[in-house]
Amino acid sequence: MTSTTSDTDRLARQLEFVLEADRLKGVLRRSYVLDPRRRENSAEHSWHLSVMALVLTEHADDTIDLTKVLRMVIVHDLVEIDAGDTFIYDASGAADKAAREQAAAERLFTLLPDEQGRELRAVWDEFEAKATPEARFAAALDRLMPILHNFHGEGGSWREHGIVDSQVRALVETMRDGSETLWAYAHQVIDTAVERGYLTSG
Amino acid sequence: MTSTTSDTDRLARQLEFVLEADRLKGVLRRSYVLDPRRRENSAEHSWHLSVMALVLTEHADDTIDLTKVLRMVIVHDLVEIDAGDTFIYDASGAADKAAREQAAAERLFTLLPDEQGRELRAVWDEFEAKATPEARFAAALDRLMPILHNFHGEGGSWREHGIVDSQVRALVETMRDGSETLWAYAHQVIDTAVERGYLTSG
Repeated sequence: MTSTTSDTDRLARQLEFVLEADRLKGVLRRSYVLDPRRRENSAEHSWHLSVMALVLTEHADDTIDLTKVLRMVIVHDLVEIDAGDTFIYDASGAADKAAREQAAAERLFTLLPDEQGRELRAVWDEFEAKATPEARFAAALDRLMPILHNFHGEGGSWREHGIVDSQVRALVETMRDGSETLWAYAHQVIDTAVERGYLTSG
Repeated sequence: MTSTTSDTDRLARQLEFVLEADRLKGVLRRSYVLDPRRRENSAEHSWHLSVMALVLTEHADDTIDLTKVLRMVIVHDLVEIDAGDTFIYDASGAADKAAREQAAAERLFTLLPDEQGRELRAVWDEFEAKATPEARFAAALDRLMPILHNFHGEGGSWREHGIVDSQVRALVETMRDGSETLWAYAHQVIDTAVERGYLTSG
């Protein structure tokens, strides 16, 4: 192996980023894993979205680049290391969410070697902007998963936080921009959740 | 949306697989997350490897296809849902590990639509066989991460299980097939761990 100081520095910066990423395992979401005794963390959630991306790609409305989707779902929640997880129904948290997450992205992605940090930051920005087919599909997966968790947990965080079906339906609407099929499926799940009393109609 | 019974069945099978994957969040490894109060689970570990793959690709010895590496690290531990995590220094567990994991792969990947299950099973088989540059690089990442965890945890599971440096060094050797740079780095980390008393020389 030949390595220069610059190579070593490069690897050191990359590994600093990798170790910093470990902290995402400590960020708890409102949703529960299927074992209802504990809340899930954002690292395992990100992995779960990557599994979804692998097996559900065909349901994207547009032709999508799977690698791009995978990169997005892997990094999409990294900013929560600093900014925390903002509950999707929390209006007060939503007010400064963007500012908190921008500051987090600034700090985290600059841990990496410059051009690599910029590249990964661009992936995150693309996810946030929801302007490309890949970002819209990744966002649809991100919306669908908590619905499945709450449904299979017979109410889960919906019940715990007094969420009603109109709130869930409003959130689900953007899924339609990424996958008509998954959007329709989410509505079916919500219908059944209301029928079974997992989710209050309102 | 037009959907046929077969489409619906396909999506149902895919989501069954996605929900089954949730159980990987309950499989605990011996390693600790950097917050040393709890052990990490295999789902968050898999995500962490995907972060490593994103930022360390350039250190692979051969030209590699990142998408292939990502698919591998995402599914590499799924079999632990049935087979459990086998501690890498556990010789008795290693004896029937392959058989347990083969049986798990058989059950899990057949949850998916047939051709999709075969395709993802092939990704897992490729990882296991370590015969391609992508599999060797993914395996090198899988070896490196616990070393970093144990080092930054000032001994972690090495200390807890009385592991000595020759055992760690023996395991690290295969990393050389995937990345000379990361292999050399792992040895440096081990050297420093011994110097600092995180790892016993022996």
